Amino acid sequence: VKRVLVTGGTGFIGRNVLGGLVERGFEVHATSRVVKDGAEPGIRWHEVDLTDEGAVKVVLKQVSPTHLLHLAWYVEHGAFWSSAENVRWVAASLNLLLRFRESGGKRAVIAGTCAEYQWSHEDLTESSSPVVPSTLYGVSKDALRRVAMAFAEGAGIEIAWGRIFFLYGPHEHPARLVPSVTRHVLRGELARCSDGEQVRDFLHVRDAAGAFAALLDSSTTGAVNIASGVAVTIGEVVGTIGRIAGRPDLIGLGRIPRAPVDPDRICANVEKLFEGTSWRPEFSLESGLRETMEWWRREEGSGDAPAETGASEGDMTARSVIK
Amino acid sequence: VKRVLVTGGTGFIGRNVLGGLVERGFEVHATSRVVKDGAEPGIRWHEVDLTDEGAVKVVLKQVSPTHLLHLAWYVEHGAFWSSAENVRWVAASLNLLLRFRESGGKRAVIAGTCAEYQWSHEDLTESSSPVVPSTLYGVSKDALRRVAMAFAEGAGIEIAWGRIFFLYGPHEHPARLVPSVTRHVLRGELARCSDGEQVRDFLHVRDAAGAFAALLDSSTTGAVNIASGVAVTIGEVVGTIGRIAGRPDLIGLGRIPRAPVDPDRICANVEKLFEGTSWRPEFSLESGLRETMEWWRREEGSGDAPAETGASEGDMTARSVIK
Repeated sequence: VKRVLVTGGTGFIGRNVLGGLVERGFEVHATSRVVKDGAEPGIRWHEVDLTDEGAVKVVLKQVSPTHLLHLAWYVEHGAFWSSAENVRWVAASLNLLLRFRESGGKRAVIAGTCAEYQWSHEDLTESSSPVVPSTLYGVSKDALRRVAMAFAEGAGIEIAWGRIFFLYGPHEHPARLVPSVTRHVLRGELARCSDGEQVRDFLHVRDAAGAFAALLDSSTTGAVNIASGVAVTIGEVVGTIGRIAGRPDLIGLGRIPRAPVDPDRICANVEKLFEGTSWRPEFSLESGLRETMEWWRREEGSGDAPAETGASEGDMTARSVIK
Repeated sequence: VKRVLVTGGTGFIGRNVLGGLVERGFEVHATSRVVKDGAEPGIRWHEVDLTDEGAVKVVLKQVSPTHLLHLAWYVEHGAFWSSAENVRWVAASLNLLLRFRESGGKRAVIAGTCAEYQWSHEDLTESSSPVVPSTLYGVSKDALRRVAMAFAEGAGIEIAWGRIFFLYGPHEHPARLVPSVTRHVLRGELARCSDGEQVRDFLHVRDAAGAFAALLDSSTTGAVNIASGVAVTIGEVVGTIGRIAGRPDLIGLGRIPRAPVDPDRICANVEKLFEGTSWRPEFSLESGLRETMEWWRREEGSGDAPAETGASEGDMTARSVIK
């Protein structure tokens, strides 16, 4: 039996990955700090604070998962780049991994980040691109990966490390790029953007979740980029949002300066992901942005819409960089 | 007031550092899992398991140290290179550092290792030598350092990282090189050694403790080699032991093969330590080995001598290396 424990089961990726794991034949257990009524059926939920070592021990002993998909982390918008919580989550993740091994675990997939790389113009490649993180978030994920991979070799377990690039989709924080621009346009308001010439790899969150499920169900190990492999400019992304809403006039490119740290290009080589799994993205940029816009339209209509934030360009890259 | 918490206060370095810190005007608190009667006077002892997060929180709140000297780690002879305990100690050390900061801490010195470096023929230098650890122990210390240094910058605290090379002196594990050869010679038994051509940097543990105290009391930050700066061969070390015992005939060089991983040269550039502190080693190799031999003579005579171990050459380098 394949039994997986998914951490961060109610998170941005986590909520989209559970069904796919059930379809792949996993008995799916998921953790969240708070499990609300109406959480996804067919899933065994465990309410646990992963920074509480004692509680983690109990859950791992109880579940004895063969597989671990560790998505949980501190992700507070704006704060996560440099918060001390990153340090706490390195410790919590190492404890989780030790308990996973102790309870008989065999294979883990852990969420990493493109912020581990030294951002450069080339397509970032697992086997060759320099790993030189410049934020506490990137340093923390990188350090966790280093220890996890060295531990895995001696402990006889497999670990794959999914480096996430730029995601968008339903439930994204409203201050980030796609939600912010989408909501401005839906309200008939001008979305003030930077020059839009930055090149990025964008992936719909359900595709990212599919990639994580496929990676967990494969035998690929080590770092693996989780991305579409398609380079687009921010201008193309926001232009597409304006076009599908029928309001290209509301896309105000060049109206605000770029963030202090906002590299020209952050794109992924996805050969390893494509060779190691049969996963391929299902959304095009246009279909993904349409689906996301529909979700925001329903969300705004429901009266539960989150409060507006000041800036209209999302928190795409690090605000605070280690010297 | 300068108030320091020393972890591993009863360990190999820790037991030698406390008095020097008192002399430097610190109010000295020390932790150990077990504090025996007769532990050093003038020191405030705290019995605590540092892998118990709750207990660490209590002690740090109680002591509110301005300084932290973190020497504790898993050091089980032979096992420490590849034990999963290294992973636990990364987590424990990160929790300790967070609690230190929360309780108002300003400056920490943490024990690192020469095993963080890629071992090579050049003198290993903090600012230029490649950091490519090849053991779980080295990877774990390296990862802790990466997170600690990035955290320190954002948290407004200072951290220096003391990379320990090859130490010897009283209370060293009897299976290691200097104790093993010393005890064989004291008993009139042949000490079987390898070819002895390996070049190392040896430092008496009391000198290492002095270097740590000086580093803590300085404003130097980042990685700092803790070493003598003097390169000697293993042959010179064991030859000196034979000579000062008056039994050079008992030094059997070339009688056993080298360990599978036993680099030709592991030596330190000590410019940064010498520039950042006024510390200089007090022992020469000969005076240090004499002092150590006297200690073993008393120890063996006391009837409390540890049981003999098989090999006569100590565990100098990693037995288990990450591929």
